[in-house]
Amino acid sequence: MLVVMQVNATAEQIQAVVETIREMGLTPHPLPGSTRTAIGITGNTGAVDPRRLEVLPGVLECIRVTKPFKLTGREMHPEDSVVRTPQTRIGPGTFTIIAGPCSVENEAMIFKTAEYLVSRGIKLLRAGAFKPRTSPYAFQGLGLEGLEILKRARERTGIGIVTELLDTENADAVEEVADIIQIGTRNMQNFALLRRVSRAQKPVLLKRGMAATLEEWLLAAEYVMSGGNWQVVLCERGVRTFSDHSRNTLDLSVIPPAKLLSHLPILVDPSHGTGKRDFVPPMALAALAAGADGLLIEVHPQPERALSDGAQSLDFAQFDKLLDMLHRLAEPLGRTLA
Amino acid sequence: MLVVMQVNATAEQIQAVVETIREMGLTPHPLPGSTRTAIGITGNTGAVDPRRLEVLPGVLECIRVTKPFKLTGREMHPEDSVVRTPQTRIGPGTFTIIAGPCSVENEAMIFKTAEYLVSRGIKLLRAGAFKPRTSPYAFQGLGLEGLEILKRARERTGIGIVTELLDTENADAVEEVADIIQIGTRNMQNFALLRRVSRAQKPVLLKRGMAATLEEWLLAAEYVMSGGNWQVVLCERGVRTFSDHSRNTLDLSVIPPAKLLSHLPILVDPSHGTGKRDFVPPMALAALAAGADGLLIEVHPQPERALSDGAQSLDFAQFDKLLDMLHRLAEPLGRTLA
Amino acid sequence: MLVVMQVNATAEQIQAVVETIREMGLTPHPLPGSTRTAIGITGNTGAVDPRRLEVLPGVLECIRVTKPFKLTGREMHPEDSVVRTPQTRIGPGTFTIIAGPCSVENEAMIFKTAEYLVSRGIKLLRAGAFKPRTSPYAFQGLGLEGLEILKRARERTGIGIVTELLDTENADAVEEVADIIQIGTRNMQNFALLRRVSRAQKPVLLKRGMAATLEEWLLAAEYVMSGGNWQVVLCERGVRTFSDHSRNTLDLSVIPPAKLLSHLPILVDPSHGTGKRDFVPPMALAALAAGADGLLIEVHPQPERALSDGAQSLDFAQFDKLLDMLHRLAEPLGRTLA
Amino acid sequence: MLVVMQVNATAEQIQAVVETIREMGLTPHPLPGSTRTAIGITGNTGAVDPRRLEVLPGVLECIRVTKPFKLTGREMHPEDSVVRTPQTRIGPGTFTIIAGPCSVENEAMIFKTAEYLVSRGIKLLRAGAFKPRTSPYAFQGLGLEGLEILKRARERTGIGIVTELLDTENADAVEEVADIIQIGTRNMQNFALLRRVSRAQKPVLLKRGMAATLEEWLLAAEYVMSGGNWQVVLCERGVRTFSDHSRNTLDLSVIPPAKLLSHLPILVDPSHGTGKRDFVPPMALAALAAGADGLLIEVHPQPERALSDGAQSLDFAQFDKLLDMLHRLAEPLGRTLA
Repeated sequence: MLVVMQVNATAEQIQAVVETIREMGLTPHPLPGSTRTAIGITGNTGAVDPRRLEVLPGVLECIRVTKPFKLTGREMHPEDSVVRTPQTRIGPGTFTIIAGPCSVENEAMIFKTAEYLVSRGIKLLRAGAFKPRTSPYAFQGLGLEGLEILKRARERTGIGIVTELLDTENADAVEEVADIIQIGTRNMQNFALLRRVSRAQKPVLLKRGMAATLEEWLLAAEYVMSGGNWQVVLCERGVRTFSDHSRNTLDLSVIPPAKLLSHLPILVDPSHGTGKRDFVPPMALAALAAGADGLLIEVHPQPERALSDGAQSLDFAQFDKLLDMLHRLAEPLGRTLA
Repeated sequence: MLVVMQVNATAEQIQAVVETIREMGLTPHPLPGSTRTAIGITGNTGAVDPRRLEVLPGVLECIRVTKPFKLTGREMHPEDSVVRTPQTRIGPGTFTIIAGPCSVENEAMIFKTAEYLVSRGIKLLRAGAFKPRTSPYAFQGLGLEGLEILKRARERTGIGIVTELLDTENADAVEEVADIIQIGTRNMQNFALLRRVSRAQKPVLLKRGMAATLEEWLLAAEYVMSGGNWQVVLCERGVRTFSDHSRNTLDLSVIPPAKLLSHLPILVDPSHGTGKRDFVPPMALAALAAGADGLLIEVHPQPERALSDGAQSLDFAQFDKLLDMLHRLAEPLGRTLA
Repeated sequence: MLVVMQVNATAEQIQAVVETIREMGLTPHPLPGSTRTAIGITGNTGAVDPRRLEVLPGVLECIRVTKPFKLTGREMHPEDSVVRTPQTRIGPGTFTIIAGPCSVENEAMIFKTAEYLVSRGIKLLRAGAFKPRTSPYAFQGLGLEGLEILKRARERTGIGIVTELLDTENADAVEEVADIIQIGTRNMQNFALLRRVSRAQKPVLLKRGMAATLEEWLLAAEYVMSGGNWQVVLCERGVRTFSDHSRNTLDLSVIPPAKLLSHLPILVDPSHGTGKRDFVPPMALAALAAGADGLLIEVHPQPERALSDGAQSLDFAQFDKLLDMLHRLAEPLGRTLA
Repeated sequence: MLVVMQVNATAEQIQAVVETIREMGLTPHPLPGSTRTAIGITGNTGAVDPRRLEVLPGVLECIRVTKPFKLTGREMHPEDSVVRTPQTRIGPGTFTIIAGPCSVENEAMIFKTAEYLVSRGIKLLRAGAFKPRTSPYAFQGLGLEGLEILKRARERTGIGIVTELLDTENADAVEEVADIIQIGTRNMQNFALLRRVSRAQKPVLLKRGMAATLEEWLLAAEYVMSGGNWQVVLCERGVRTFSDHSRNTLDLSVIPPAKLLSHLPILVDPSHGTGKRDFVPPMALAALAAGADGLLIEVHPQPERALSDGAQSLDFAQFDKLLDMLHRLAEPLGRTLA
């Protein structure tokens, strides 16, 4: 922490700050400059709360130096993490594709999709049984029945299941069926839910909040890890900006800094990120090139009949074409599709 | 709904869209223009899902005409709503002030604050027993013990209680104590929580999400109203933008359009909106002038000792000064402080 | 400047930073902490360029302490500035209203508007002879003929002229006619234009860029002041955010921090800020309550016939009503309309 | 254009809108729906100005259907454009790399960089003689002397020159030296400058404004094309959002919609887009994969000694490594580096 004094701060004001820092059990280091004084603080083990100092007379601002996250940070855990499911792994060297429809609509379409994906070497199926919808009048998902369908799809095809958990009420049911529990963008700071999945025995896919900074995202992951669940995968899915050419602004530029600050794997969801089918393949390829560890991508047997998000879903032929390009790009990048 | 065709759409493509609209049970109205054709749709009772049409060949875009919210909308309910608690009312003609500390820290500070507020004519106390915190290592509130303290403060002083509900687990406990249940910015789209409070017997204060459009906010209120609870108060508390001069960008400009589109009362939280004590009074006065129905504002007996958000809390002397100015401005605006 | 080292920075890396700082003619102050070392820098007279230090091995980040603006800052000039025209003043105690149509359309409408405004005690007329338009096919203003009309309006009524300068080519012509030269939002960082008006003999009204931080805005003002023209007025006109309920997001919350950091007067343009006539009066009143020094506001004799921005212009009856409310609010705030 | 009436609009109000549309020389098509009436408009040749209709009583909103740009749009010009310089081409099939330092610092470093780039097959050198700087106290470039150095670099090595034009004063000088004239992000809506380069005999590289929508960007290009200069290249360089993990938010997701709407080539500037050297290579690769037509990228012989933007410049070894990866990725994408 660095306390910056105002230009016209008096010697008494500086002294009062110094004494308050000592009262807090920390060590002050006054740095008199040509126009103003700053006071460095050492001796803290975690982040210092600036509030008590900011309100003292003569203080201009407090600047935080220590990063507030620990378990998610790369400084304490330099190697890349690997997250495992019975079917596959997410982490360095591989590029993991999680594909499937937005929501479980019925058994036939899930079976059809799962069989198709398995035939293409895909190990993880995404599909929502519980759907978060902006309007209370929109289709909310099949619920527990949807989970049952997903379970049967795994039994039938061996594909792993990635499905969203919306609330603590359904946590046990989702945890039982899911190979990876998805926490959606609207729940990135639903702390009760984060604490619940921090006790789960399954990996957690944590989507970035629509307006979350990287630090807030890593702190949300810290909730999961500090509760005991170290199997966390980040997923960028577009943020909210002024830009109106796509549904969200897919922020691929968060990948390099996320990799720098954290050891956690990071996926990209180009379907929600763009909201339009035609924009999905170029963004999927770009995610691979930017260093993402994989994709969460919407594939539907008949997008034009989808109950939700049909406009952003690829059909099987489009997905085949994308998969082929991903394979061809992965090789020079030293990655293997999983 | 209006379907806009591409400039080079063929007659067959236009015909296919027309037939799909008929299949959907709706009436198409082709409008051939000089450069392209658009197709109006009538016959719908609610919003038409554009997805099925957007993916048809030759379609450029679908433009929605009907607003997706109903119960929150002013078109169906032209008069301003009034929300009532045993202590006061929120709605036209009044300017309701809800004041108090960020969190319940102990009984003494809550009693002191409640007594002070009552002496100034304030009818509602805000204070969090459960605190949503970005970091898992920050103070998370006193929990049920905090609720008990708030209950005793009401018994002692008669002041009404506004306190945040973070999760469904504690819904019964919060509903019992609260005169108004607060739903925080991070939970604006926590649909399980919205559905729970839609069955509550207490009014709901719904804060705007950090990156929520007005439409999304009204649809979140629609979740509460469509579940049976019509006692909803909106609260603007700052949105997330590029601007870095304050903690959030307090969006006072949402008040006139919210009033135009909806009959619900709307409060402003200048404390979270600005994040700095000195910026709170001018924004509080501006909220009154802009047409807000009241304030949610942080007041603390000793801000410099606060466990959370001290930097944005007013002390009693500062609050007295603000209250005096609010009284003086309310009069020419035809409003009475409550 | 504070240089924060990585947790695992070596003693050699720290030493290299210390030596580079000395090489730059500055004094390093290493602050060894429990988890990492930070190095304070003193001895600088202006802002230190962090680039050279940021690229050294082991450096996590450089944190700037000294503010980069000088002449616009309040630290060196504690009293509020007053900007004067022959007709009026902008600054503490007064609330200055600059009103008129978006653009000069013809002589009759300018004379009519000027006479109306003078009859209401307004001292400054706004109207554009040169219009910046997003599309090359939109009405671009009357140009020099428009300036002539404005000049005649002043001769006829005595009202002062506020008009926009778009480019250096027309600088002499605009400077001759204008009592205040307006620099629009798209030109806030048109440095050639800023340098030109820094040599003008007339005050400059500097609108905030659509995505400008407060610091960038003050640095744009610093261009004008450092060139010799100290007569600068800031004008907030809405920023670009995700919010879609109005044309821009009018950021009234910038007023208190602008007043804290700078001595320059600040106006608000609620017409561009909202884009809709009905939203203008509440935002105008809110600007006064928030501490703005005045308004730049669109008034048109027949808004429904306006060549540009008719939807956001008040007609005379609406302006009369707003003016009455402004008078009534100004009194308790200790302000006088000018 | 579609005019949407309020739910409770009267028959007289609807009739008044219909008549106004006829007065405007256009054809109204009333579409009575179950809850409200909408009125389609046909007969227009360009975009209809909604202002006159929006202010009529009973009108809820006007929805634009026709896109406002023409020459930049793909609808009228379906094939991809190719932009040529004497040294190379920008357009389909190729991936054009424009590299060099942020600014011309002296002759030696420009010659050294040009020779290095030519040895690597790079055909275009970027370097600023005139620098737009946020602060008036920062290095502003060598000006005309810088242009001379660039000219000599071309004479010596044959490399083409891409350099920024900041103002109309220096337009002749820049046009003479440049093979491509760069218009920077702060000048995207400097219409005097756009009109000047619309008469230039050299191609124009038009950077996206910091907060520009795709439509505004294409309309800025429309200024250049409608003035007669069809040689326009777009360049994405990051936009302004709440995100703070990099200098700007590089919006790669704009590439597919830009390609859909426009025939113009589009480059990406990963150096300004990220602001940090280590983040540049992954974003450069992602730009190629996303379908960009090339890069504008900062390379400096000694980044740690750069007078500006050193922290985001690659050194030669880093650029070599990136170039190798670009070559390997271009092949499966069917692209050739130029």
